Order: sequence, then structure tokens, then C-alpha cells
Amino acid sequence: MNKIKMSNNAFVYPMPLVIVGAVVGHRVNFMAVGWVSRVNFQPPLIAVALHKSHYTNSGIHEHGQFGVSIPGRSLVKALDYVGLVSGEKTDKSRVFETFKGDLEYAPMIKQCPLTMECSLVQAVDLPSNTLFIGEIKGAYADDQCLTEGKPDIKKIDPITLTMPDNRYWAIGEFIGKAWSIGKGYTT
Amino acid sequence: MNKIKMSNNAFVYPMPLVIVGAVVGHRVNFMAVGWVSRVNFQPPLIAVALHKSHYTNSGIHEHGQFGVSIPGRSLVKALDYVGLVSGEKTDKSRVFETFKGDLEYAPMIKQCPLTMECSLVQAVDLPSNTLFIGEIKGAYADDQCLTEGKPDIKKIDPITLTMPDNRYWAIGEFIGKAWSIGKGYTT
Repeated sequence: MNKIKMSNNAFVYPMPLVIVGAVVGHRVNFMAVGWVSRVNFQPPLIAVALHKSHYTNSGIHEHGQFGVSIPGRSLVKALDYVGLVSGEKTDKSRVFETFKGDLEYAPMIKQCPLTMECSLVQAVDLPSNTLFIGEIKGAYADDQCLTEGKPDIKKIDPITLTMPDNRYWAIGEFIGKAWSIGKGYTT
Repeated sequence: MNKIKMSNNAFVYPMPLVIVGAVVGHRVNFMAVGWVSRVNFQPPLIAVALHKSHYTNSGIHEHGQFGVSIPGRSLVKALDYVGLVSGEKTDKSRVFETFKGDLEYAPMIKQCPLTMECSLVQAVDLPSNTLFIGEIKGAYADDQCLTEGKPDIKKIDPITLTMPDNRYWAIGEFIGKAWSIGKGYTT
């Protein structure tokens, strides 16, 4: 196996893809985000890393709240669209229908099978991005995406993004049970 | 569509799965990590959120360096194993072969198709986890996982993890080109 040192040196595979909703001015805005992760177990915290140039950021700073919606494959064109155009120039508020949970400024997307409303707990200032860390105050799932009360990834049918080749991919087959199939593994 | 409020309220789909390597004491240790994301564009920063109970953490704090290796499906049992057992009780240093790039304490896994060596820039202290933010100083790919010089997700064949149902999944089919298929989208 020949190891090649890469000039572009930053990769995560597979990368999730969510839509962050925020209220900027008095208007709901959406953006596609691949830089997202759980970051704390209890309380449940999630982080999104947004480039400082994004229009969405000021809404999160102002209201201290944001929504995270996980789109299914059927929304891929709308998802791509909200990643392509800036809310500064284009009104994206009608691309999706939204609903609220307990928070006033954390718009979640009705058409997305799984959504979370988040309250900002910390904004980590990095050189080109701001890492918004939010506490997940509530999560909402379409009943059709659940199996035995838990979200079922095959029913959610989420999208993964690859960079730098800029492609969207679906989820494939079941491989094995986590914290199980490696029991008794020996090298 | 009926929206159900979930009692377990924290989800990311699809979640990546990497193996973090660090040197603890004088021994290489590995752990499986699903809470990982790019967090800054330039310089390229990546973050991993590790529960404070993990053995790996002290090695990252001590040396200020760690490796991130992206496993393919063929490594799923070994990956699961290094997520199941703690380095405090079990010597995991021989589960994988490692190699070094420019950094002394950022062990990367030879068997993984794509790896990165990271230098710690910030450790964000959260209630139950520490978010280690590292600058990616170098990335290395097996030549067999590249297409036109870029990593090819179908050749890498990475693993995604779902929680709370604790399952591993493969990547499926190509859906569309990012920042392209949404052009001209109208609601």
C-alpha cells in the first residue's frame, strides 16, 4: 500500500448534512451545513461550524437559538439551493415550511424527518469560522421514520456530502451492530 | 405528517466514524470516535469530542498531538473492538500498524485508506466531554482510494454509525452533484 501525502489535507468521511435554520432580521433563513457534530453527552450539545461570512451567523448571535433539521434524499435539490445562495441577497424563507417547538427563534423544517431546536451555549471564535455550540432542547421526528420508537436511518434516508469532489451520497446497507461485533476481537 | 417529540433528543445522521490515535504514557492507544467534524476552513481544523472518562484524553493533553484515521468497512470488527475496551485496562497498541508523518505523537493507522496528523490548538472544556480542536498538519491516502487525485468515498468505503440504535452502515449510491443540482430551484 503506497501512502500519498495530499496537498488538500482535510477530510471527514462520511460527512453528515443538515439544514440550520435561524431568524435573521425578522425573516427565517436556512443554510446547508456539513460541519456538524454532537460534542457533549449530558446535557446534549451539538456544534455547527459556520464560516464567518455567512448571513445566518448574525441571527444565531442575536437570538441565541437555531434549529437543526436533517433532510431526506427527496429534499436534495432544495438542500443544495439553500447552500448555493445567500440569505443576504435572496429570501429563502419560503423554501421550506417551518414549525416551532419550545424555542421562539429555532425554526425547524416540517419536510425534514428529524429536527432539533437548540439554545446557544458557547460561540467558539476560530480563524475563519465560528463554532456555535448549542444545547438540544427538543427533538421531533416524523412517526414514519421511527422503528420501535427510534429513528431508523433507512427511513430517514439522509444525505452525506463528500468534499473536495462535491457530491451527495445515500446511505447503504447495514454492516453490523456497534459495541458488539468487535467483542473478543484478536489481532 | 405527525411530529413526535422524542425523549432521547440528540441525533446526527449520518455520523462519521474515525479512529483517534494518541500516545498515552509510552504506548500508542486507539479509540473509535463518531463525534468528529471539520470546524475551520483555513487553517484546516478538525474537532473530536471525547468523553472526559476516556484514557486517550491524557495523551492528547500531554503531547498536544493526535492522529485521525478513517477506516474502511473491512476494519469494522477492529474498529468496534477499540471502541469497546479501554486502553487503561487493555493494550490496544497492536490492533493496528501505525506510521508517522511529520508529528511525533500523532499515530496514524497503516490499514486505513485516509489519515490525518493533527496538532492541538484548543481544548474546549464542556460539561462531560472535551472538544479537542486540532490543526491538520498532513493527510495521507492510499493511492488505491483516489480517483483523479481526490479521495473517492466508494473506494474508501467508510462506515457510518447510528445512535441510539447502535448500528454500522455502508455508503450507498451517488445522488447528485453538490452546489450544482439545486441551481435555479424554485419552490
